[in-house]
Amino acid sequence: MAESRVMSDARETVLITWPEWIPETVEFGTRYETDDDRMRLAIELSRQNVVRGTGGPFGAAIFEHSTGALISVGVNSVVRLNNSALHAEMLAIMMAQHRLGSYTLAASSSASYDLVSSCDPCAMCLGAVLWSGVHRLVTGADRDDATALSFEEGPVFPQSYTYLQERGVAITRGVLRQEAAAVLELYRRQGGQIYNA
Amino acid sequence: MAESRVMSDARETVLITWPEWIPETVEFGTRYETDDDRMRLAIELSRQNVVRGTGGPFGAAIFEHSTGALISVGVNSVVRLNNSALHAEMLAIMMAQHRLGSYTLAASSSASYDLVSSCDPCAMCLGAVLWSGVHRLVTGADRDDATALSFEEGPVFPQSYTYLQERGVAITRGVLRQEAAAVLELYRRQGGQIYNA
Repeated sequence: MAESRVMSDARETVLITWPEWIPETVEFGTRYETDDDRMRLAIELSRQNVVRGTGGPFGAAIFEHSTGALISVGVNSVVRLNNSALHAEMLAIMMAQHRLGSYTLAASSSASYDLVSSCDPCAMCLGAVLWSGVHRLVTGADRDDATALSFEEGPVFPQSYTYLQERGVAITRGVLRQEAAAVLELYRRQGGQIYNA
Repeated sequence: MAESRVMSDARETVLITWPEWIPETVEFGTRYETDDDRMRLAIELSRQNVVRGTGGPFGAAIFEHSTGALISVGVNSVVRLNNSALHAEMLAIMMAQHRLGSYTLAASSSASYDLVSSCDPCAMCLGAVLWSGVHRLVTGADRDDATALSFEEGPVFPQSYTYLQERGVAITRGVLRQEAAAVLELYRRQGGQIYNA
């Protein structure tokens, strides 16, 4: 009885992990001074995810706003982990909250956090940004770049961004857009799976 | 070295589980014939989550559409698991995909799935519904019921629902709304935490 209960519990636990190459590639605590520096990391994560075959062409990272210290990263993990919710931003947010031991990144009076994503977030991720407690969202490629690849963004409208801004989330879009979009194109050339199509 | 690597990996794994009372309370495979039957389960999950003190007043369940067989459930787990993404719908979707071993619930040619939620989904969950592969969304309480409790829904607009419908997701709202809203009121009376405020 006890044994079957343990087996049952193990079967009913969803494990969310980074691809193996993340801890070897990323140094947490490193400071990324500018938005361009931070975006270059998000784009490099998206590129590595394609090159290493671990998922879709999307990367994200969370930094302490003022120091630029790297707190968390994410890459698209939908196919790798059989979980449609695991877009890059979602993995970065979950890992940040796991590492900080809090369900909100807005709990500290001394630190605030930036989420930097290689692409404009989909509807799910834009909602998740609001609940995550990050105070700033920085994006690279845009909706048109993603839809050119047949990746859908879902029900995101101009007023979706306004809604976040009115609730205190600063938003900067189009940082290193060309470099970010180049990874989407790389994925397309490689014949990568469009799991949302 | 090997040992520190294992410790590092364990620290960097997010474990997503149900509260302990779920497997004791729910019988997977049981058939729930009607929308009312299915909603009663989602509402009962929301109520148990409040009464047992394991989270916010929201429950969700996924059923095979034609047979009504129960596939997965979710309850709000934001505070319990320190994870702002773990709304009831997200947990139900992740567990369903985990159990079926697929990142989409639209993979089967013979089965389609209904997600039944005790409350209208927030912006994150509405986006997640689209990516999950469920073909139908059924909701109980509405945005006004939730905001009366200071729970925010985020950037959801009438055209958000239209967007999903145009992509093949059937939507039925307001099923047993009063019963569903009563659990929100129970949570308020108990002084439950409004973690999104």
